[in-house]
Amino acid sequence: MTEPLRLGIAGLGTVGVGVIRIIARHTEMLAARAGRPIEIVAVSARSRSKDRGVDLTPYGWEDDPVALARRDDVDVYVELMGGEDGPAKASVEAAIGAGKHVVTANKAMLAIHGQKMAEAAEAANVALRFEAAVAGGIPVIKALTEGLAGNRITRVMGVMNGTCNYILTRMENEGVPYDEVFAEAQALGYLEADPTLDVGGIDAGHKLALLSAIAFGTRVDFAGVDLEGIERISITDIEQARDMGFRIKLLGVAQLTGRGLEQRMQPCLVPASSPLGQLENAMNMVVLEGDAVGQIVLRGAGAGEGPTASAVMSDVIDIARGFRLSTFGQPASSLAYVQAAQASAPAAFYLRLTLKDAPGVLAKVARALADAGVSIDRMRQYSHKDTAAPVLMVTHKTTRAELDHALEGIKATGVSLEDPVAIRIEEV
Amino acid sequence: MTEPLRLGIAGLGTVGVGVIRIIARHTEMLAARAGRPIEIVAVSARSRSKDRGVDLTPYGWEDDPVALARRDDVDVYVELMGGEDGPAKASVEAAIGAGKHVVTANKAMLAIHGQKMAEAAEAANVALRFEAAVAGGIPVIKALTEGLAGNRITRVMGVMNGTCNYILTRMENEGVPYDEVFAEAQALGYLEADPTLDVGGIDAGHKLALLSAIAFGTRVDFAGVDLEGIERISITDIEQARDMGFRIKLLGVAQLTGRGLEQRMQPCLVPASSPLGQLENAMNMVVLEGDAVGQIVLRGAGAGEGPTASAVMSDVIDIARGFRLSTFGQPASSLAYVQAAQASAPAAFYLRLTLKDAPGVLAKVARALADAGVSIDRMRQYSHKDTAAPVLMVTHKTTRAELDHALEGIKATGVSLEDPVAIRIEEV
Repeated sequence: MTEPLRLGIAGLGTVGVGVIRIIARHTEMLAARAGRPIEIVAVSARSRSKDRGVDLTPYGWEDDPVALARRDDVDVYVELMGGEDGPAKASVEAAIGAGKHVVTANKAMLAIHGQKMAEAAEAANVALRFEAAVAGGIPVIKALTEGLAGNRITRVMGVMNGTCNYILTRMENEGVPYDEVFAEAQALGYLEADPTLDVGGIDAGHKLALLSAIAFGTRVDFAGVDLEGIERISITDIEQARDMGFRIKLLGVAQLTGRGLEQRMQPCLVPASSPLGQLENAMNMVVLEGDAVGQIVLRGAGAGEGPTASAVMSDVIDIARGFRLSTFGQPASSLAYVQAAQASAPAAFYLRLTLKDAPGVLAKVARALADAGVSIDRMRQYSHKDTAAPVLMVTHKTTRAELDHALEGIKATGVSLEDPVAIRIEEV
Repeated sequence: MTEPLRLGIAGLGTVGVGVIRIIARHTEMLAARAGRPIEIVAVSARSRSKDRGVDLTPYGWEDDPVALARRDDVDVYVELMGGEDGPAKASVEAAIGAGKHVVTANKAMLAIHGQKMAEAAEAANVALRFEAAVAGGIPVIKALTEGLAGNRITRVMGVMNGTCNYILTRMENEGVPYDEVFAEAQALGYLEADPTLDVGGIDAGHKLALLSAIAFGTRVDFAGVDLEGIERISITDIEQARDMGFRIKLLGVAQLTGRGLEQRMQPCLVPASSPLGQLENAMNMVVLEGDAVGQIVLRGAGAGEGPTASAVMSDVIDIARGFRLSTFGQPASSLAYVQAAQASAPAAFYLRLTLKDAPGVLAKVARALADAGVSIDRMRQYSHKDTAAPVLMVTHKTTRAELDHALEGIKATGVSLEDPVAIRIEEV
């Protein structure tokens, strides 16, 4: 095992540069830990001439990532370009086809094509690893597939999009409305080119789908994730939550029940005193619950050069050490098809209604709720100047189906001026 | 790899029974994840007839753990008896000598004999693993040796003795004095037979010494841990800390600096709003800081049947999967001898002095502090009825050496009626 492990890196954005820096800085330390040297033999990116602050002259260059993936002198193809299809997918498939190990940070690609890619990798007897795809520097894939491998996992939860948590934290701490913080985050380059990937919960949903597959031994089912973004969260919601001892988080929750696989990525109210409630700014947190271990909480930076490159290196070092683990912790062919299920456990919900200001309106809403079997724990109507009356409620525990029924009923009364905002109160 | 992995388990206390339960409950799941069945072939304990709530009839029995360790049909010897010498050490050495892999939860044994045992295991080409020895169910050894293997680790911190944290939390939340909570914890069986292992910080110190070795690639040096227990923490200290926005924790901190390896396991003041400050009851928390990943926080149960057995199973499954990793993450022979160093970074300290109630006393104390170069940030003297005046102070940042010098000076004045209590304010 003293032969070097030779890497080809495609994608020289923040993470790719971070990986180059770690390998250049820690050559000896890495060799001591991995039992063999780790070398970069060649790289690929859109522009060869762009100044990235690292010296690329020691490495070979390929314009085409597919060519890089197939190079004879590459043992591990490191895909850091992103994008669910296109060059990322083509090059990863080429690498597997050429018998190369693959390390990737590409959650979108794996959330869609992960099952097929894992099967191909296992058939080719190569590793396909993706620690960097979920929760940045937090070694959560390793914790689930290895650290907690003796547990039946009962629930996985996580705040896994740092940008959303940053936006919500700023709204809460500084009282800045959503639109303003959003514009700010965009100006600072915190948001993806398509911002709905972040604020629409899609990016975090990809991550949750990957964690679910590992946690429950099921096929990756991104389409089965009940997705809701943070776009409709208002300062009023945040303040009201705080007054009740809660904070609003874009929280992913996955559970396997008798009815199927529940996967939700939605704004939730969580107790302000809980670890999830206390998570500020762009930090990520994953909560893993197992039948033996109880609850394990992992917290760290979810993005950025160093943290994500650290996760890439974890996979690379595992491969250098000769560890061979199925992509999702057990053979891809053994992952179960399980149908998607809506959240079945009853929960209390926070509701924000915008109602016509007219006599009898509240009675109609109360009737619609009662008809659906939803009872109200507390209610508050703010004084207001215009013809739209904001009404805030917290329900007693109810199922999502009953609540949706109630919301339909409210809509049917014709007294609701905007779609109601409904946020689950999660027991964490 | 479809041959079963055959275990011999020595020690059928809480953890041993937990391992038996997991293997019995999850036979198929474990085989799917590990790629081969995991079986218990024989067990050993002090009493064969004791009712432990699990059926031992499927397994062979050995009165002597050394005989169990050497059995031909055992692939992995699981040592869960504890004790730094005696049967634990003898049987682990026998297992390694017989070419068996070893999984142990024995922090005391490894903190003292870990280097030799790791060398022996590596020479015999067998695994010696100890995830369960540190922080119970938290997969911290794996996070350090594998998840963060691409990082130079800059600092490791942890609350790793649940009993101490339970005692401190009860003192804080309910105002119960130390002696009372201690007696209670003893009655509940929370304390080791020799309680100084817990409240004296020894058990947590063992764990810190193991983490340091992995984090910094140094030889385990338990003797180099600056150890201080929680026995002298009073309700006054806890209340005073709270008033200043801090909480008192038995905190381990390890750092490798130009002066050597700093390892401290001492009561510290940490900000009440920090993850460490918020850790309640018997929970454990480990904070890992790396040059690429930044800060990773891991939280979970530090003891108990399920959590500790979960950690044992993580090691067992790694071995079943064929992962072979040096005990401390790199070859034992490559671990560096580094001298122990006292904490060099200046810190503010909280001081509780018990002084004679007489004119000029405070002047003498102030002089002793000034002579040592220690300046006072704030001070408080409580009204009191007897002749002993309690005085609380917080110093400006100073080194431990300067502080010790000041404390010697105060002692020399003859006005101090009790040894001062000095607690470092840690920047976490």
